[in-house]
Amino acid sequence: MLYPVVWRDDRVALIDQTRLPRELTQVEIRRSDDMAMAIKTMIVRGAPAIGIAAAYGMYLGAREIDTRDRTAFLERLEAIGQMLRETRPTAVNLFWAIERMLKVARTTPGTVEQVRQTLLETAQRINAEDLETCRAIGKHGLEALPQQPEKVRLLTHCNAGALATAGYGTALGVVRSAYLAGRLERLYADETRPRLQGAKLTTWECLYDGIPVTVITDSMAAHCMQQGMIDAVVVGADRIAANGDTANKIGTYSLALVAKAHNLPFFVAAPKSTIDLSLNDGSQIPIEERDAEEIYQIGETRVVPKGAEFYNPAFDVTPANLITAIITEQGAIAPADLQRQLTPSSPKSS
Amino acid sequence: MLYPVVWRDDRVALIDQTRLPRELTQVEIRRSDDMAMAIKTMIVRGAPAIGIAAAYGMYLGAREIDTRDRTAFLERLEAIGQMLRETRPTAVNLFWAIERMLKVARTTPGTVEQVRQTLLETAQRINAEDLETCRAIGKHGLEALPQQPEKVRLLTHCNAGALATAGYGTALGVVRSAYLAGRLERLYADETRPRLQGAKLTTWECLYDGIPVTVITDSMAAHCMQQGMIDAVVVGADRIAANGDTANKIGTYSLALVAKAHNLPFFVAAPKSTIDLSLNDGSQIPIEERDAEEIYQIGETRVVPKGAEFYNPAFDVTPANLITAIITEQGAIAPADLQRQLTPSSPKSS
Repeated sequence: MLYPVVWRDDRVALIDQTRLPRELTQVEIRRSDDMAMAIKTMIVRGAPAIGIAAAYGMYLGAREIDTRDRTAFLERLEAIGQMLRETRPTAVNLFWAIERMLKVARTTPGTVEQVRQTLLETAQRINAEDLETCRAIGKHGLEALPQQPEKVRLLTHCNAGALATAGYGTALGVVRSAYLAGRLERLYADETRPRLQGAKLTTWECLYDGIPVTVITDSMAAHCMQQGMIDAVVVGADRIAANGDTANKIGTYSLALVAKAHNLPFFVAAPKSTIDLSLNDGSQIPIEERDAEEIYQIGETRVVPKGAEFYNPAFDVTPANLITAIITEQGAIAPADLQRQLTPSSPKSS
Repeated sequence: MLYPVVWRDDRVALIDQTRLPRELTQVEIRRSDDMAMAIKTMIVRGAPAIGIAAAYGMYLGAREIDTRDRTAFLERLEAIGQMLRETRPTAVNLFWAIERMLKVARTTPGTVEQVRQTLLETAQRINAEDLETCRAIGKHGLEALPQQPEKVRLLTHCNAGALATAGYGTALGVVRSAYLAGRLERLYADETRPRLQGAKLTTWECLYDGIPVTVITDSMAAHCMQQGMIDAVVVGADRIAANGDTANKIGTYSLALVAKAHNLPFFVAAPKSTIDLSLNDGSQIPIEERDAEEIYQIGETRVVPKGAEFYNPAFDVTPANLITAIITEQGAIAPADLQRQLTPSSPKSS
């Protein structure tokens, strides 16, 4: 099994996802500012994995604060939380994890050293919970898949896999569960420009586990559906508003529109921590814009001449009416039922 | 002005489009088999430009046939036509140009040398006619654009520009006409994976002529429409069936679906020679599949790990009901009126 974020003795080991698929290497993170940089530069990426990384980042930060005074400690921990919050604006799991860590810091009695210890345990718990959550999503997702054909052809976008979570994956958790249950014919993976997480990460992860995978460019998805090659689409999410509108990797909205045009089920697989009930709808989700270099530079090759303008939104928002069901650890929920059916998730419950 | 196919003394000079945008170089073609290879490897590409190149290829072939016997000459010219036909299966302009050249060879009286001379003149005429055709498409396309806003934001896919024609372009002919008339705010260019003709060629061509251009990845188009950044879409075509179904670069169908979802006009710009009245609908258009390397290899960089499968259709078919109008040299025609309104084009008329 692949675990992109692992606590090792006194540090965090991250699989360096910018070096995949060329090589599987780990980066060791000992400081909170290094963790912030790792999130920003996408050494670690994927909404749930970012949340886990940020939780460990909070602990690393807590370790750096040289004081025995609780008030001073909490103040400085808030500042570290702020630094980590500013790494990426769209995925809500980042803010959720930081808030959960801050709440634990505020409410844990005892000395600063005791609070630090509880923070480490909380980060490890967030890590372990996410793995359980992914397995539950996989199970519920498998149940939600169309009953016919017996072996389904699934399509996914970007990487919502083991590499994007504690392990197992959300969208790829569903794919994995289908594969393990003998219900997967094949996964079609959108390459997912500009950063090619589908081509580089989803493909690599599937090959690692023996899951049959076919790579297509993003704009081939509609043609594949027209040709009857796809039975359902399953993607991850970076933030889901209360009405079910879903922010996910750029291209997801396009995919949802073309799936709708072909009457194919379109599933969003995500932990409850991705749902942001404070936002009424998707128009309130901030969309990160990233550097134009992601478009014009591919490896050693500059593919666009100098002088052109670029627009590089990293995410888009898929309206709830294009989503068949949102698959959480609690089960498959129709977007319209999200607010009603959802039992509160931590940190509100813990 | 850019002219991708030029007759020079005793040979054809092709802009080597595989080397753009890095460098503007020409390849000189003296033999018909070299022309076939240039078409196959996409040194020259774009349906109308392929037609022109094939016409010159037929003349180069005629020059290679060492006989004074008309029957033997025609037989061997048919074989050269067959070799050129087998280079690319989807664009009908290729077959149209070869057929026109063969018809001229069959019907021109006189010696083999006189036929050869007429073939050269016919190829040059096809070349010159295409340039006129593009200018007419540009003019009609400009008239078909939405009246509001005054300055429109257009989106295009792939390169249906000067580089894909004798010059001026079809889809980019419309863009150019809008630009020259002061009605273009900006062109959004899909990068167009896998071969990146949008990123490499459309962008380069726009910068060459000072047309403001913004590059996006293919899957960003829907998001841009959702954000109200696009007023209309205009693309080229490789083959149009009698009912208006249109084969064009892979991704066009996806774009047409998302344009429809946003109630945006979707224009196909192409010469009448792209319309294949022998096909009732798009399901009869053969779709070329190209090498998987186009997906996994970008410049020096392999972006997909070894072991994955690939699917690489070079074209897709957009159903007529998603197309607002087909813009030919004769005017903007609703797909449903195509058969009725279309006056026959050469070779039938010539």
